[in-house]
Amino acid sequence: MNNSSKEAKTVEGLTVCIVGVGLISGSFALALRDKGLAKHIIGVSRTEKSANRAIELGIIDEALPLLEAIKKSDFIYVAIPVDTTIPIMQTIMDTITEQQFVADAGSTKLALCEALQNHPMRHRFVATHPMWGTEYSGPEAAVRDAFKGRACVICEKEKSDKDIVDAIETIYKTLGMNIIYMDAAAHDMHAAYVSHISHITSFALANTVLEKEKEDDAIFALAGGGFESTVRLAKSSASMWAPIFMQNRDNVLDVLNEHITQLRKFKSALEKENLEFLEELMHNANKINRILK
Amino acid sequence: MNNSSKEAKTVEGLTVCIVGVGLISGSFALALRDKGLAKHIIGVSRTEKSANRAIELGIIDEALPLLEAIKKSDFIYVAIPVDTTIPIMQTIMDTITEQQFVADAGSTKLALCEALQNHPMRHRFVATHPMWGTEYSGPEAAVRDAFKGRACVICEKEKSDKDIVDAIETIYKTLGMNIIYMDAAAHDMHAAYVSHISHITSFALANTVLEKEKEDDAIFALAGGGFESTVRLAKSSASMWAPIFMQNRDNVLDVLNEHITQLRKFKSALEKENLEFLEELMHNANKINRILK
Repeated sequence: MNNSSKEAKTVEGLTVCIVGVGLISGSFALALRDKGLAKHIIGVSRTEKSANRAIELGIIDEALPLLEAIKKSDFIYVAIPVDTTIPIMQTIMDTITEQQFVADAGSTKLALCEALQNHPMRHRFVATHPMWGTEYSGPEAAVRDAFKGRACVICEKEKSDKDIVDAIETIYKTLGMNIIYMDAAAHDMHAAYVSHISHITSFALANTVLEKEKEDDAIFALAGGGFESTVRLAKSSASMWAPIFMQNRDNVLDVLNEHITQLRKFKSALEKENLEFLEELMHNANKINRILK
Repeated sequence: MNNSSKEAKTVEGLTVCIVGVGLISGSFALALRDKGLAKHIIGVSRTEKSANRAIELGIIDEALPLLEAIKKSDFIYVAIPVDTTIPIMQTIMDTITEQQFVADAGSTKLALCEALQNHPMRHRFVATHPMWGTEYSGPEAAVRDAFKGRACVICEKEKSDKDIVDAIETIYKTLGMNIIYMDAAAHDMHAAYVSHISHITSFALANTVLEKEKEDDAIFALAGGGFESTVRLAKSSASMWAPIFMQNRDNVLDVLNEHITQLRKFKSALEKENLEFLEELMHNANKINRILK
């Protein structure tokens, strides 16, 4: 399958189709244009409103239906909720020619890679996950210089043609990202620990406070004490994150069970007024300092 | 007790004693000096090392033992772990004269207010909690302009002389803070919801990841996906936070139980592959957006 005889792809002045015109695809499109990698950007959007907004914001040059957009493009980049990615990617793979190439930006990788594994055009697809995001969504959420300094995971590199892996790497590196290779299952496991669980705890923390703290004013006034940063992700889009949790269900349940166990240790230390155990739990948590900057 | 006949205190050029030379007291001292409120700042520190570092950093002018420092000061400001605050505050209250005044910056208020309620000098003390902090500690953690735009809670205002409540308010307002009045029990309850639980979830999240994710490199490389902001507080000082959780045990246990219940709902939605329930939980959490900016 691996077509290594193909010439290296020139990565500049591409006609690019972005499927989805939101946080990730929008930021990606802005970066492609800023770096001179794209000369024409076509957007595919579920809604006319988002498409128009993306044109107004200078993210895309035109909006077209999917099949028309694919036909006009060198490179198709898919950044939509992971549940809708699979059927749309099937359509894209059924439509493209050997001269075109495709990548996705989804937060889960195994389900998509499995869905595409026997497709005759699999070799024209690169599975990627640029590790950047904010709690906002839609074309207005797109920001310039979004991906700089962050990691981008590429999965199952060996199943994609060398020319397009090179092209994708050149694109992400030009955007300032560091490339990491992983198999899809390893990606999904690590993503559960370092990203998906953070979102679940943040959603659950928001629900905790909304359930118990009936005085909005008190929350608003006092929220300086660490609350905002831990609860920030609770503003994230349910239509984007629910399918991620579902697709990565086994890993997310694993880490969620462990997290509940860890919270129970704090509960037990408090119930027993065991200051020593409480401090031990916290000193252990401090070790995260070694890993983060 | 309330001595409202006393003349309004002039709040400038004070000689101030800060007990503790760390994150809060250090930032407070820097702000007092920047605003011209203090002409001389004396630090009281457990360790010579911190005291010397605070002098080097321009936070304090000199370091003295507690009793000597009190004698030379107009205003004594206590910002040390909440468990050691109580005995040290007793000593301070036993030592001060009617011309001096005292405030604390502790994250819990009920235990301290109860401990001091029958002290004959109670009227020269103001219970305060400036709602600002970072995950760092020690004199190096002190920052300029730290408190600006944040809330400061004053508890049991009616038990403090009017002249010193006015002085404390002037000081915090000059630092750019908004004053909120609350009784001590209400403060501790709200603080559990909007601050203490955030710290516990962050500590527990760090422990979850450290327990399950044995590949440090993977955490480090992938941590862009929301992890850093939710786990940031896990770097916080155990010696500062363990006593806060202990003193505010009932409220913290209440909210921790609710939080575990909320996490279990996510677990149940995932186990049952109930996408509708999962999305409902997340849409509810999105309501936090209404409260935060």
